[in-house]
Amino acid sequence: MSITGDQSLLREINRMALVRVVQRAPGLSRADLAKETGLTKSTVSLLVQDLIDEGWLEESDVQATGAIGRRPTPLFLNGKSLAMIGADVSLDAINVLIVSLTGEILHEASEALASHDPEKAIRQLARIIGTLVKQAQAAGRYLLGIGVGVPGAVLDRQGVVKLAPNLPWRDVPFQASLSRELALIGVKGLSIQVQNDYDVAALSEHEFGDSPLPDPLVCLGIGVGVGAGIIVRDRLFLGADGFAGEVGHSILQFDGPGCSCGRRGCAETFIGQRAISTRIVGNTEDLLSVDTIKELVDRGDEAAMLAVRRAGHYLGILIQNLWMYFNPGRIVLGGPLCDLGAPLLDAANACVERYALDCQLQLPEIRLSRFGSRWVAVGAAALVKHALLRPLDFGLRLN
Amino acid sequence: MSITGDQSLLREINRMALVRVVQRAPGLSRADLAKETGLTKSTVSLLVQDLIDEGWLEESDVQATGAIGRRPTPLFLNGKSLAMIGADVSLDAINVLIVSLTGEILHEASEALASHDPEKAIRQLARIIGTLVKQAQAAGRYLLGIGVGVPGAVLDRQGVVKLAPNLPWRDVPFQASLSRELALIGVKGLSIQVQNDYDVAALSEHEFGDSPLPDPLVCLGIGVGVGAGIIVRDRLFLGADGFAGEVGHSILQFDGPGCSCGRRGCAETFIGQRAISTRIVGNTEDLLSVDTIKELVDRGDEAAMLAVRRAGHYLGILIQNLWMYFNPGRIVLGGPLCDLGAPLLDAANACVERYALDCQLQLPEIRLSRFGSRWVAVGAAALVKHALLRPLDFGLRLN
Repeated sequence: MSITGDQSLLREINRMALVRVVQRAPGLSRADLAKETGLTKSTVSLLVQDLIDEGWLEESDVQATGAIGRRPTPLFLNGKSLAMIGADVSLDAINVLIVSLTGEILHEASEALASHDPEKAIRQLARIIGTLVKQAQAAGRYLLGIGVGVPGAVLDRQGVVKLAPNLPWRDVPFQASLSRELALIGVKGLSIQVQNDYDVAALSEHEFGDSPLPDPLVCLGIGVGVGAGIIVRDRLFLGADGFAGEVGHSILQFDGPGCSCGRRGCAETFIGQRAISTRIVGNTEDLLSVDTIKELVDRGDEAAMLAVRRAGHYLGILIQNLWMYFNPGRIVLGGPLCDLGAPLLDAANACVERYALDCQLQLPEIRLSRFGSRWVAVGAAALVKHALLRPLDFGLRLN
Repeated sequence: MSITGDQSLLREINRMALVRVVQRAPGLSRADLAKETGLTKSTVSLLVQDLIDEGWLEESDVQATGAIGRRPTPLFLNGKSLAMIGADVSLDAINVLIVSLTGEILHEASEALASHDPEKAIRQLARIIGTLVKQAQAAGRYLLGIGVGVPGAVLDRQGVVKLAPNLPWRDVPFQASLSRELALIGVKGLSIQVQNDYDVAALSEHEFGDSPLPDPLVCLGIGVGVGAGIIVRDRLFLGADGFAGEVGHSILQFDGPGCSCGRRGCAETFIGQRAISTRIVGNTEDLLSVDTIKELVDRGDEAAMLAVRRAGHYLGILIQNLWMYFNPGRIVLGGPLCDLGAPLLDAANACVERYALDCQLQLPEIRLSRFGSRWVAVGAAALVKHALLRPLDFGLRLN
């Protein structure tokens, strides 16, 4: 698709391209940017001034080198002016953050989820967001928009939660309802984007990670649900209907245990919180919390230790399969179950390293999320940035 | 990445963008193209004339509508002038095609692979290509380049076959050797691209399929090897090292049979030709050909029927998993084992339809390759076209 026609769109594409280049290579000068992007120096100067005025970029002090002549001024992303709102709506809590353009957490508010009724949950979320918006504005921040991560499949263009089986929600018009609830408390004019929790988690790594960014990037989240967020060629990869990365419902064993989705042998039934809990308590009704499982493991409960190690082993198989399907440059693990630590993760590592040894291939880098339990909320804020920086994909969806 | 600087690159991007738009929507006029791409009408006219002169596009007759005024001239891809060479180097044969820009097979030559020695195989391939090049040129075709599909992992930027375990080849400088062998017989100036066989197979569907093109598209090839070629956002998806889609080596069962790759329980050990053959003959050494397996099935051999149905069942599990990982708009099946027909494919369908029923989700469209046994060779030709139409990704690799 050519992009030389609509001048305001072209300008926005060029502006955001400059921000992306600076994000990837902090410290470039205007002359570097002209060289890197192919734009003329005068165009770059105009656009950069604009981006500085708006708070996207900032100049840093030029270091004296002793050489004669004017030194080029290095440019950086400005972490002090713009910010995004990111919300993590999970099965038991709402966590909302204000995050700077460079990934610093500026304000935070958490509450237990008061109700699984979608209308009530959205009203509670709106109230928390409203409080944080005031704080951010009082601190002089300009807010770019609101991102929300939810544990389910989302039709992101409509902002509708198609199915969140563990809440359980079906066809919830999340974006429209949140917009209405926010308007009722006087919060208006902020764009709202809703997306699957582990999809946005991947964006926390991609938008706030250090260069060079691995691509593809696979972020595997493990909790009650198991799912992956995937970055392909610098964009969130969603698939035909937005459900790509539902690897918790890939089959690890034909005729395995029944899954919440209706199938048998899904990865979630071997790796998820329910799988571990069921192995410990012997039934599927009493779902042990991650804290309880961790306590049992910490005090050496044999059944708990075995259950966690078994889940870790299957986690290793899933990681091996993600490796084969996507050939990622990096796999990042996150989600509540990561709190179980070594008993889970060592078992996973042992399993996947055995596979790598058997086939004599080098594993991709595997690491834990840099944002820990906040990765969904930070990722939801990152979604706002990710979309703004890619106006062709997310603004006008010409691609 | 902005693209307004380098004028010759910008021109090529715009030219190829116009070809892609016409490919996706045949019959558009110059005015439509201006509207669609945002280019000015005069730029479109200049570039289109160029593309017509070079043989990319052609005008068709304007249909009389009875209305007053000049009717816009519809534009189409020109199937009569340009062509690509596509080669399929498989375990037992070399198949080379000359394919038009619109996907018609113009010339074809097949030979049994005379030797598994890479140098000899490449020399044989060069000789076949040389013959076809003469035929195509005698028929007045301008050749755009050579694409080669091989059954292994390829470092496509270097044109090196990293590993083709079933041949077995390791670190074969395929592109350089083929270029040298072609020069020796007087064939010069044609670009050469080498890629995994099922990766290029996916391009046969993507470059020569009917609009609208599903995206993502997953093409699953089954033969001795099992692998997938994947299209994401209009581009071949290769992963960090070029090995994405190696789903034949995803684990279907922990502690399953040993695989040629060194691991246990890989999908290939349940679905591939060796798996079926081993079940029938009771040992892994005597590999039955697909023709022999088909004969046995056709005359109702019970062991053969059971083995094929079992492989089909596991094929269904792999399809279910591809569905969950990639959320494709379409899954296309191809490769030698598809010749086994209903006993294999019905079992696969029954399995995957059961999964869809259990979770109450609609399966993506699943169909057989439109090019049958030629899909790799046609796809190798499609690779040449795919790369030329995307100068930013494949020409300069700026992305």
